[in-house]
Amino acid sequence: MKDLVIRPLAASDSKEWRRLWTAYLEYYETSVPVEVYDVSFQRLLSDEAGEYQCLIAEIEGKPVGLAHFLYHRFMWTIEDTCYLMDLFADPEVRGKGVGRALIEAVHSAAKQDGVPSTYWATQEFNYKGRMLYDQVASRTPFIIYEKGD
Amino acid sequence: MKDLVIRPLAASDSKEWRRLWTAYLEYYETSVPVEVYDVSFQRLLSDEAGEYQCLIAEIEGKPVGLAHFLYHRFMWTIEDTCYLMDLFADPEVRGKGVGRALIEAVHSAAKQDGVPSTYWATQEFNYKGRMLYDQVASRTPFIIYEKGD
Amino acid sequence: MKDLVIRPLAASDSKEWRRLWTAYLEYYETSVPVEVYDVSFQRLLSDEAGEYQCLIAEIEGKPVGLAHFLYHRFMWTIEDTCYLMDLFADPEVRGKGVGRALIEAVHSAAKQDGVPSTYWATQEFNYKGRMLYDQVASRTPFIIYEKGD
Amino acid sequence: MKDLVIRPLAASDSKEWRRLWTAYLEYYETSVPVEVYDVSFQRLLSDEAGEYQCLIAEIEGKPVGLAHFLYHRFMWTIEDTCYLMDLFADPEVRGKGVGRALIEAVHSAAKQDGVPSTYWATQEFNYKGRMLYDQVASRTPFIIYEKGD
Repeated sequence: MKDLVIRPLAASDSKEWRRLWTAYLEYYETSVPVEVYDVSFQRLLSDEAGEYQCLIAEIEGKPVGLAHFLYHRFMWTIEDTCYLMDLFADPEVRGKGVGRALIEAVHSAAKQDGVPSTYWATQEFNYKGRMLYDQVASRTPFIIYEKGD
Repeated sequence: MKDLVIRPLAASDSKEWRRLWTAYLEYYETSVPVEVYDVSFQRLLSDEAGEYQCLIAEIEGKPVGLAHFLYHRFMWTIEDTCYLMDLFADPEVRGKGVGRALIEAVHSAAKQDGVPSTYWATQEFNYKGRMLYDQVASRTPFIIYEKGD
Repeated sequence: MKDLVIRPLAASDSKEWRRLWTAYLEYYETSVPVEVYDVSFQRLLSDEAGEYQCLIAEIEGKPVGLAHFLYHRFMWTIEDTCYLMDLFADPEVRGKGVGRALIEAVHSAAKQDGVPSTYWATQEFNYKGRMLYDQVASRTPFIIYEKGD
Repeated sequence: MKDLVIRPLAASDSKEWRRLWTAYLEYYETSVPVEVYDVSFQRLLSDEAGEYQCLIAEIEGKPVGLAHFLYHRFMWTIEDTCYLMDLFADPEVRGKGVGRALIEAVHSAAKQDGVPSTYWATQEFNYKGRMLYDQVASRTPFIIYEKGD
């Protein structure tokens, strides 16, 4: 898409980043406390190892999407792996390649950092997401179990 | 099980750890280069943030199982989350609670370290594993996509 | 949708029925011999017990979709059950409620015939179909195994 | 297994058939009214087209398992298909090949009757069943939706 730009998160994105992440969390019918917004935003900007990074998609200067990703150790290789945790595009720009561009940008950034592979989890019934993911990645046979408090 | 002990990996476990991890990797019909064994073993013993840790299950002093787990950031909480990557019990001790004890020990260790939740991935058709996981954890609706080289 | 009519298959539908069913089979990347078209068409019109029935969706007099369904015994109830095998709407009319109307019409016909429940199978990755099915029916935990020649 | 015999249901099996089918239904945490037992038993013995048939597995003369199967039309072929609806083996004879022998016997009977393919549905989490089914049949990508009353 012509006017689509993918760029790192900046401190000046605070308001738009909160808007986008809130919309993302609403998709999952969840919410997080204000404290999590504050701490997460600082961490995303910290540029430290072990912290998530954030890429922002913008169209004509307006943020319309985000991706949060993390490098972490992988037992089976010397190199780390890249976990793409949150991916979001504003509903009004859906179908314009924002999600695809964010995935590709995360994967490119990871490879430049020596991280060859990127993975993410999605709900089995996230049909719209999976239409895209089937095109740009491979579905693995893995499912996730969780042991909570 | 009476004589089952779960304890941290020690430098003296090198040989048995290699044997157990090899058996685990063979289950997945994969293998890793010698270099990965060497680097991974050092990392497991390093006790540094961002590295996997390893718990060994032993019966009557003989290592019979292992678990590799990692704490990493989680966007939705202040606390980290715990990823249990590799879990293995020798086939000859299956059904004696080794896998269950390792999962519980990882989860306990994580909670003591302020990490409330532990998750892992398994192949949809890992029936024997899932018989256990359904008892000790919750299946989520998440599946995994991977974007490789 | 205003001009959408659901009606039984008629002998005069031969050509359009072949067109629609071919398009359906192409979705599944399969084809059947001419003989199967001929025999199946006769069976659909035969009005005999144990044969599939066919409903045609038409818009402004033009056939744009079809449903093939069969009543068969069900061990767990006195009543038969209804198996909806083939469901198709022309791509150019998608999103206009043709699939939904066909499902509802099959289910209504079955109920009028004393068959309380209708079921169908779909590929796990038929995302567009499942967006509809999730609205009008319940996903069961059942998957299908097949033992061929 | 040496003493395992697969044979058609007989009128004299009434009591044992009820026992086995009840145990099967309990696995699915369901039950059916007495009337359904009576009507279903008559139908199984009727030898009429469109009715389920039943094979009984017995060891040393004692019924230990059953299979209910039905031939029905299949749109994509001239030949019918065979639906194996209920399959059960007494828990105390599990692992002795009763389930496998019943599946093979149903498939053989179907082929002798000109029905080339047999299919069945199972819950995604029926791990023990699927260990067997993966060996004797192919998992399809199909899942089942149901539209009830």
